[in-house]
Amino acid sequence: MNTLGLLCSGGDAPGMNMALWAAARSAEARGWRVLGVHGGYQGLLGGSVEPWPADRLRPFARLGGAVLGTSRVPDFTRQVGAAAAQARSAGITHALVLGGDGSLRGAGLLNRAGLPTVGLPATIDNDVPGSAATVGFDSAVNFALPLADALLDTAEALPRLCALETLGGNTGHLAQAVGDACGADVVLVPEAPLAAPELAGRVSAALARRRHALIVASEGYPALEGVLDALAREVGLRLRLTRLGHAQRGGRPSARDRLLAGALAGEAADLLARGHAGVLAWRGAPTLLEFAAPAQQEA
Amino acid sequence: MNTLGLLCSGGDAPGMNMALWAAARSAEARGWRVLGVHGGYQGLLGGSVEPWPADRLRPFARLGGAVLGTSRVPDFTRQVGAAAAQARSAGITHALVLGGDGSLRGAGLLNRAGLPTVGLPATIDNDVPGSAATVGFDSAVNFALPLADALLDTAEALPRLCALETLGGNTGHLAQAVGDACGADVVLVPEAPLAAPELAGRVSAALARRRHALIVASEGYPALEGVLDALAREVGLRLRLTRLGHAQRGGRPSARDRLLAGALAGEAADLLARGHAGVLAWRGAPTLLEFAAPAQQEA
Amino acid sequence: MNTLGLLCSGGDAPGMNMALWAAARSAEARGWRVLGVHGGYQGLLGGSVEPWPADRLRPFARLGGAVLGTSRVPDFTRQVGAAAAQARSAGITHALVLGGDGSLRGAGLLNRAGLPTVGLPATIDNDVPGSAATVGFDSAVNFALPLADALLDTAEALPRLCALETLGGNTGHLAQAVGDACGADVVLVPEAPLAAPELAGRVSAALARRRHALIVASEGYPALEGVLDALAREVGLRLRLTRLGHAQRGGRPSARDRLLAGALAGEAADLLARGHAGVLAWRGAPTLLEFAAPAQQEA
Amino acid sequence: MNTLGLLCSGGDAPGMNMALWAAARSAEARGWRVLGVHGGYQGLLGGSVEPWPADRLRPFARLGGAVLGTSRVPDFTRQVGAAAAQARSAGITHALVLGGDGSLRGAGLLNRAGLPTVGLPATIDNDVPGSAATVGFDSAVNFALPLADALLDTAEALPRLCALETLGGNTGHLAQAVGDACGADVVLVPEAPLAAPELAGRVSAALARRRHALIVASEGYPALEGVLDALAREVGLRLRLTRLGHAQRGGRPSARDRLLAGALAGEAADLLARGHAGVLAWRGAPTLLEFAAPAQQEA
Repeated sequence: MNTLGLLCSGGDAPGMNMALWAAARSAEARGWRVLGVHGGYQGLLGGSVEPWPADRLRPFARLGGAVLGTSRVPDFTRQVGAAAAQARSAGITHALVLGGDGSLRGAGLLNRAGLPTVGLPATIDNDVPGSAATVGFDSAVNFALPLADALLDTAEALPRLCALETLGGNTGHLAQAVGDACGADVVLVPEAPLAAPELAGRVSAALARRRHALIVASEGYPALEGVLDALAREVGLRLRLTRLGHAQRGGRPSARDRLLAGALAGEAADLLARGHAGVLAWRGAPTLLEFAAPAQQEA
Repeated sequence: MNTLGLLCSGGDAPGMNMALWAAARSAEARGWRVLGVHGGYQGLLGGSVEPWPADRLRPFARLGGAVLGTSRVPDFTRQVGAAAAQARSAGITHALVLGGDGSLRGAGLLNRAGLPTVGLPATIDNDVPGSAATVGFDSAVNFALPLADALLDTAEALPRLCALETLGGNTGHLAQAVGDACGADVVLVPEAPLAAPELAGRVSAALARRRHALIVASEGYPALEGVLDALAREVGLRLRLTRLGHAQRGGRPSARDRLLAGALAGEAADLLARGHAGVLAWRGAPTLLEFAAPAQQEA
Repeated sequence: MNTLGLLCSGGDAPGMNMALWAAARSAEARGWRVLGVHGGYQGLLGGSVEPWPADRLRPFARLGGAVLGTSRVPDFTRQVGAAAAQARSAGITHALVLGGDGSLRGAGLLNRAGLPTVGLPATIDNDVPGSAATVGFDSAVNFALPLADALLDTAEALPRLCALETLGGNTGHLAQAVGDACGADVVLVPEAPLAAPELAGRVSAALARRRHALIVASEGYPALEGVLDALAREVGLRLRLTRLGHAQRGGRPSARDRLLAGALAGEAADLLARGHAGVLAWRGAPTLLEFAAPAQQEA
Repeated sequence: MNTLGLLCSGGDAPGMNMALWAAARSAEARGWRVLGVHGGYQGLLGGSVEPWPADRLRPFARLGGAVLGTSRVPDFTRQVGAAAAQARSAGITHALVLGGDGSLRGAGLLNRAGLPTVGLPATIDNDVPGSAATVGFDSAVNFALPLADALLDTAEALPRLCALETLGGNTGHLAQAVGDACGADVVLVPEAPLAAPELAGRVSAALARRRHALIVASEGYPALEGVLDALAREVGLRLRLTRLGHAQRGGRPSARDRLLAGALAGEAADLLARGHAGVLAWRGAPTLLEFAAPAQQEA
């Protein structure tokens, strides 16, 4: 019997649960059975697999997190054979892997190891080649906005120099989107560090015009705390950083992420049913997992 | 003509705008005129006063921040005579001051300087004697909760050690309420520091039971970052702090804060109309401003 | 072994899950075992009982709804003997019942039938004598506020006559709190119907002043749709009702409801441990369940 | 001097304020002056025009509604000459109109009457040909989601048949997106009415599987209340409709709408500066306003 194994890997992202539910519904509509792997590749290696039919997944679809749990397995390359064997012995005939680049690379390995596997881009970082948007990114931007808005609320009342640090790893996608959406005076992204005088100049200009300024910065910006300390000294104001940290991973999935998750999961089930594997599901234009997740990434 | 001067002082708090609107409505219902002082005591000293009838305040009542603006004036004691004179020359016959302890002490000085003044407790810190709850506190706790919930969302998916830092100055009211409301494993408040072994013990117990733990800490906890670094080393996990910073001041006022703001503002207008001044408005039991805001505070 | 049976009854309310978790923690801290009854009194009659230790309840504490499920049993009076027997045969030695007046009356019956039972006031209607606030009320008011705010957002842009209908059954508590918190022009509560000319007069005055008006009404207001239709004709504007319906029961519990739920649950466990039963847990002043839930109520 | 006139028309939509601010910034960066028309085409006819530089618009960018106000002018065709003359006499040399199809048709008329005008698609209905998404649509879907989620919260606790009515006029875009995002059992859209037996069959199947069901319906669905009443009788359950009404127009703009508003506003300013007019701004592929807003629409 065709049996779809669902697996989340790497950092969790809002919308993963919606994708799991939608994939299960699509698979069941084709008469397939659905199993869930608990705790990502690590759980798969340990044989932690259970029936997760659509009706069991349904109440979680509107929640953040990943109900199956996830994990990081840095040396998955050497264990992929064992993982594929475990999957087969648990009855899994096809797999759907949700995650970011490292996780999708693992999915590609799993596919080459003989288990037909499709990947679904799910990460708040929006850094998966072959997809224009990843499940979780829109939620993470929307999660940050009320904090940026609240900083403006208070800064308009009592003039302040404010800064908001987003997640994003070594990329600036999240910070840039948050900064643009809230109208930040400066957005600091690792890809294009600003020279100190330019940063001070832009902040000073904002302060001169309305006595407050808002900076949005990616956690990956080089020496961020030092840069902000130097800036605060330069303009003669205190600055306290608001830091989202891992909270930005959680929270309910946004409408857009739920719709994207539903569409991609249906597409992934369809690809597997039609005999395609080793690809990333993306809006009628699947790309090879090797392209979506180039090497040098952890699984 | 009786003229009520409205003034916000110190850190802004959600619900201040609702209190301003409610006070203006109550005053106008008695046939009084309403003026707004821009920028707190500093603005008063500079004569920054404008008509702010209830209908002008109304669209702001549901927003965070303080539409009149606010300020901190450390040496207000020496300037209170000038402030009272400025108020009188602007036509203000009675004043309502919204703020925390320092601001309310300023209100007491203004009252002694001959301007009949009532205080309204409005600060997210909930540290005004004579009031059981200050306008803004409930909003600030509710503002923090989604972040705590989001940390749990992600920690349940991918086991983590998480910490959330709240505002609160040197007090632990905010952190305690947030921690209790989200079910934190440990709450760190400045009033009762934990010994390192006890902290590590409680966190380890939580990790042993479910592989994640959540700490909520007040910004005023002694050497917080060092304590958390030591803890992370002790339990062998990474820990990244989510920090609310000034964002916790902003955001929309909660239902409770709006209702409290409306009730206290009506009461304050009533007190002034009945010839009472120099007191803090509090649910039928006004206390002297000197009790609500003992000395040694900045204005 | 002392065994606490947890049971939710009647309409669910945000904060019930927090109360369940807190009660389980308090009971376990005393060495008790904890069982959960699925589906309220109906489930109890059917023997639907399972272990629900605190750690199983924990992930639900921050969610709305009632994870144990609930039910309405109109003729519980005649079945209470069977219910108490089922409880005992399931091993339950003490019970905690969460709900509104009808449910608490059932709790009183259960107690008299020989099962030591304490009640915890949990309903969005805030209509339990002996309690100043019920778990769920603050959440339900906060849930409605963004809709009222949104109506004002749009009415300020394009003048409109707007109305928002809240839940509340035959009481006006919810509507009044929502209306006061959002600054409605008129609040319609069943307890004090307005004469048509007064309603039209107040709405016309608001329209004259700023070209929009907002009415908040309880679902229990007599002939509400007819009253609003007549009003719309009278003032010559279209009016479309925004109706919360059962959505107002759901949503995450507010900070205040979580804190209240936690405090009352701890108190309830303490009462049972100290041999008290047949009472409503309320902040150090428990009242008899017969007072909290007078007869003529459905269970 | 080049002077950009900003105008909102028709139903307001979240993100309009962000678009106004972004347009003003883009215009000012080119050395243009910015005026705001109050109250849409009606206000333009009455000469209600004021300076609205970017810094004045900024604090509104994160709020719902439309700070300039809007209006509906059914017979704008006959008044467009007067409107263009008023615009010129107020000093407006170029215009940017934000709105849905009717409003954009007005913009086309204004352009033909000699005032170089560009349109920006802003409506929660997402029904503007030539644009794949309108500013406001994503916010309106996100606004509805918590209500749908809350209905599921309570229906999972106490089995219910629930229905949520969205806005959308005669189209089903909003209802479909909300229904897909929340996982509704049935979505009722005007474009494709369901036969009663099919509706009852799908709802009964959901009820059989998990004892609750959720329907999302567009306000434009033919005889919606009658259809739902008949359904409730058929399946033997009560059904109360949750109705968003105009509340769905309000609320803060989502991240996506803010980003879209910012991008399109910048593009609109660029088109005008480069001498293009009579077109709808859309991601590098402007279409003629006549295509975006065919005739037979109210202005």
